[in-house]
Amino acid sequence: MQERNFLLTIEYDGSEFCGWQRQPGVRTVQGMLEETLSAVCGAQVTLNGTSRTDAGVHALGQRASFRGVYGIPTEKIMQAANDRLCGGRRLGGKLGDVRITALEEKPLDFHARFDAKGKKYRYVIQNGGPADLFRRNYCYYVREALNTEAMRKGAAHIIGTHDFACFEAAGSQPRQTTVRTVYSLEICRRENDVILEISGDGFLYNMVRIITGTLVEVGLERRTPQSVREAIAGQRRSLAGHTAPPQGLYLLEVYYE
Amino acid sequence: MQERNFLLTIEYDGSEFCGWQRQPGVRTVQGMLEETLSAVCGAQVTLNGTSRTDAGVHALGQRASFRGVYGIPTEKIMQAANDRLCGGRRLGGKLGDVRITALEEKPLDFHARFDAKGKKYRYVIQNGGPADLFRRNYCYYVREALNTEAMRKGAAHIIGTHDFACFEAAGSQPRQTTVRTVYSLEICRRENDVILEISGDGFLYNMVRIITGTLVEVGLERRTPQSVREAIAGQRRSLAGHTAPPQGLYLLEVYYE
Repeated sequence: MQERNFLLTIEYDGSEFCGWQRQPGVRTVQGMLEETLSAVCGAQVTLNGTSRTDAGVHALGQRASFRGVYGIPTEKIMQAANDRLCGGRRLGGKLGDVRITALEEKPLDFHARFDAKGKKYRYVIQNGGPADLFRRNYCYYVREALNTEAMRKGAAHIIGTHDFACFEAAGSQPRQTTVRTVYSLEICRRENDVILEISGDGFLYNMVRIITGTLVEVGLERRTPQSVREAIAGQRRSLAGHTAPPQGLYLLEVYYE
Repeated sequence: MQERNFLLTIEYDGSEFCGWQRQPGVRTVQGMLEETLSAVCGAQVTLNGTSRTDAGVHALGQRASFRGVYGIPTEKIMQAANDRLCGGRRLGGKLGDVRITALEEKPLDFHARFDAKGKKYRYVIQNGGPADLFRRNYCYYVREALNTEAMRKGAAHIIGTHDFACFEAAGSQPRQTTVRTVYSLEICRRENDVILEISGDGFLYNMVRIITGTLVEVGLERRTPQSVREAIAGQRRSLAGHTAPPQGLYLLEVYYE
């Protein structure tokens, strides 16, 4: 048998996971998927995930690849893994909190993270009405009305290629560059929700959540749209706003060539 | 100080609760509320809940009353209890999974259960698209298209005063009568959801879930609308359909004089 390389698309509710990355003794998405796929493939599977989402962060389109010599037909891997992931509860009408939505074979040199050309995230804010208890794990509740027009003005300073050091979590590991390109940043209101969608070639640690927190402060008129430009120019974390909580964040899509 | 009697309105996400009723060693809504209210009031609180919802069942308008001699001002009980129920997480933007939405003082002889004149429930079915992983605890997923017109014809046989023995869970405790009055039973489609709302003067154990399961079978055209009338007339559980799962069920409202 030949070595093969698979690319997965994965959806998960991050509420009950300690994030993506495998860690001993805690429930993580990577850990759970590796365990499941190893059982299905009959050999140790190690996943290369595209995005190391934090505890509480959700994904509709996470990607991960894995290589190995497996006898199982490609089309059976996904079904068998999903059957295990929902713990046989599907007959009772219940899903698990993670599932594989697509699986494709790729050339051996393909790598889900290194070959990713960009990503798209959504951030959901409940802004109106009493906090929805049933959505406590799925959005950020902001009680006071947000001025979305001001938020869009602030967002305009973010789109493009900039050094985004101000939007990186303090204490992040040093990296070659904090320059990134934001392709689009859209803000829309749907009934009681304000929804941000942001795409770019890459994101620094906590970047989407800090951008959201900063734009929420703009929307609350506690800072000006212009201050977003100044924060970027100043390159210091202290110039940006708070880090919005994880439960409003969804990894939507990963782009490849 | 005089004895007082309070009526609570309570909202909860039943996903992580082993139902309403207090039981040693497990997390229940009644147990959690009694513990919280006892701490707030400085004396043992015992709740009389209106509906003993099962594990996984949700409530938007559960009611419960409790009597006692408490020094705390009425208006402070709700706020103090809710602060404890969300474990101080409100500042971080997170709610707990249960909260008190109203508290009023009632005459001493008022009892939340015995004085209830009726209740209203909602049952939510996802019927279209792939099963929504984020709603796995909040609806019943039925893949094949439901014929809601047939469901409404079946529902018409349920409205009114009948002996509903066929819609009571097998093995329920013997009771004086299984005659109940269903005031209304509405079925509507909203995008991919089919939603049932049912109100009546009282419901037998699992009655709403068995009615839903039976009407789902009508909607799938596995049984006729007419068979609903026959099940009621036959008074046997085996003549009705399956018990729909708990996670689609919401206690909406309790009626008093």
